[in-house]
Amino acid sequence: MNEYAARLDSLRAASKGVALYVSALVNIRYLTGFSGSAGHLLVAEDRAALFTDSRYETQAAQQTSGLELEITFGDSRPAFADAVRKRRIKRLGFEKNRLGYAAFRFLERELPDCRLAPFDNAVEKLRIVKSAGEIDAIRRSVELNSRAFDQACRKLRPSWTERRLAAEIEFAMRKLGAAGSAFPTIVAGGSQGALPHAEPRDAKPAPKSLIVVDQGAILDGYNSDMTRMISLGLPDRRQMELFNAVLEAQQAAIDAIRPGVELQTIDRRARQILRKSKVDGKRLDELFAHSTGHGLGLEIHESPRLAPKQRKRLQEGMVVTVEPGVYLRGAAGARIEDVVAVKRNGCEVLTPTPRQLRVIE
Amino acid sequence: MNEYAARLDSLRAASKGVALYVSALVNIRYLTGFSGSAGHLLVAEDRAALFTDSRYETQAAQQTSGLELEITFGDSRPAFADAVRKRRIKRLGFEKNRLGYAAFRFLERELPDCRLAPFDNAVEKLRIVKSAGEIDAIRRSVELNSRAFDQACRKLRPSWTERRLAAEIEFAMRKLGAAGSAFPTIVAGGSQGALPHAEPRDAKPAPKSLIVVDQGAILDGYNSDMTRMISLGLPDRRQMELFNAVLEAQQAAIDAIRPGVELQTIDRRARQILRKSKVDGKRLDELFAHSTGHGLGLEIHESPRLAPKQRKRLQEGMVVTVEPGVYLRGAAGARIEDVVAVKRNGCEVLTPTPRQLRVIE
Repeated sequence: MNEYAARLDSLRAASKGVALYVSALVNIRYLTGFSGSAGHLLVAEDRAALFTDSRYETQAAQQTSGLELEITFGDSRPAFADAVRKRRIKRLGFEKNRLGYAAFRFLERELPDCRLAPFDNAVEKLRIVKSAGEIDAIRRSVELNSRAFDQACRKLRPSWTERRLAAEIEFAMRKLGAAGSAFPTIVAGGSQGALPHAEPRDAKPAPKSLIVVDQGAILDGYNSDMTRMISLGLPDRRQMELFNAVLEAQQAAIDAIRPGVELQTIDRRARQILRKSKVDGKRLDELFAHSTGHGLGLEIHESPRLAPKQRKRLQEGMVVTVEPGVYLRGAAGARIEDVVAVKRNGCEVLTPTPRQLRVIE
Repeated sequence: MNEYAARLDSLRAASKGVALYVSALVNIRYLTGFSGSAGHLLVAEDRAALFTDSRYETQAAQQTSGLELEITFGDSRPAFADAVRKRRIKRLGFEKNRLGYAAFRFLERELPDCRLAPFDNAVEKLRIVKSAGEIDAIRRSVELNSRAFDQACRKLRPSWTERRLAAEIEFAMRKLGAAGSAFPTIVAGGSQGALPHAEPRDAKPAPKSLIVVDQGAILDGYNSDMTRMISLGLPDRRQMELFNAVLEAQQAAIDAIRPGVELQTIDRRARQILRKSKVDGKRLDELFAHSTGHGLGLEIHESPRLAPKQRKRLQEGMVVTVEPGVYLRGAAGARIEDVVAVKRNGCEVLTPTPRQLRVIE
């Protein structure tokens, strides 16, 4: 049995015999291998059927096996509803966090004899723990991402604009085989670094500033995510303190990762370290305005979240980012991020790029 | 009054005094200028309030004016619901094609004293007709996209893989100032061209094959979209016939564009031309498996659709793609696509790139 058939069976086991409508494309990809931009999947007890439109006729046949395929001209939702009626399905689970309100009403209207049952992240729950094959796929994406960073940095000149560096990084990713970037690459120098999600500007970072570079690639559907810091010229004392505090916080969080530990514990470790330092009279943990990390895989942000109040526990096979950051409004920002796989007795940092401050002069 | 305030007022006029919850980020951007990746907008009669999280505190303040801003740590939806309660709003419109099922249920639960009213594309309807400023923004994006194509083609060698060409195009976009590509660039040689949404392969197109290049850029939030054909070596008779039929169909569709014409008429014009030609015994209109075009703007696919059964009429200020294509499974594909703005007395093709078959030897 191939991995996709096994995933469909795991889903059937989780849904306890209820037929399921999978509407989220990323979940369809996880369950079938189909990567088109439109589709609807029906997972019944004995079979699974994929509905998509004529743009994807050839691709769906190439990418999937063991599925019934139904191809429509234009929106395939009516054909999906038809199939549910014809098979006399009396109860249909749907993805309550993925299906839109209007799509739900459409099903209600089209399927008056079928009870619609909201399912809470049925596929996402399977996706939290990665198979060995998936961890390999994430590792390849992470390694490609690191090579792209390295190639761009070796060419980097202080005269480059933020946008130029972002462009070079994404170009390197593509040439190395990435399908694209996982998100718009962040290159944020000086005070821009204080915006966690800054857009690269068509401007050079100021001399002697710190630059936050946050980048991810997509390879064979799997995402990577890494943040590194560059210093234009030797850092001053305050920059060095900021960087070192974030690095120490990140290492402390990584050191705590192993199966059985609560997610919030990892987040707390990072905050405990930042709490010990101050800059401009402010405690650094008060300048850390997001959570410590997130799962990644077929999506760039997945469960679990390494955040306050998350009481679930790490499991072997989870893959998460660890990315504490400190943001001094109007002045500077610092963030360091790696991808970490939870292993039986601890964890493995998948990101090969050294975390040190890279000085460009 | 700035353009954003005017848009909010147009929305208020369209919603006839009902307070509106705008959940789609692209619609929030259209109404306020805020471009963050998380946010919720409340548009009431007398004021508008934007709820977002701490990552976007500085950005929201920089990008918007005249709004109340509420910043939360993590998900800002509870703060949004709080505000609706505090303002004693008795009826709240929501975007029925944008809001998720679970988000709808959350509001139902949190706002028992408020009637939730589904709104059908209230903001999208405003967005169909572009302002002069928006058409300028689309034009700049289109021109950048064309320059990127030209720069990459001037470097193109027959030894390049599909992926390499896609990478060079996207790199050129970025260096020219694009925030990124509007969608993964398609470079599809030979039989890959028969897949309308092919992913570039890590392989050279075969000698003497046709290559479909479909690419778009994002500049200041606005999308562009263009398809051009490259021939590796001089085309043979069949390739030339395929290309010329598609070019003629595209021109016929463009020639029909002016205010007052039904959308389906534009689509029919393209099909009528393709109908006159055959290849391998098949009529070309039967090998044209998608619609003729789509609106574009802040999103790459917007209303209107140039498709069969679309009886609404073109209006001055609409901006659409015109992109007939022919797909011969296992053999070849051809598509040509421009961006066209509807003008008072006809239309203007915004795309400056010549449509001719570009021969690389």
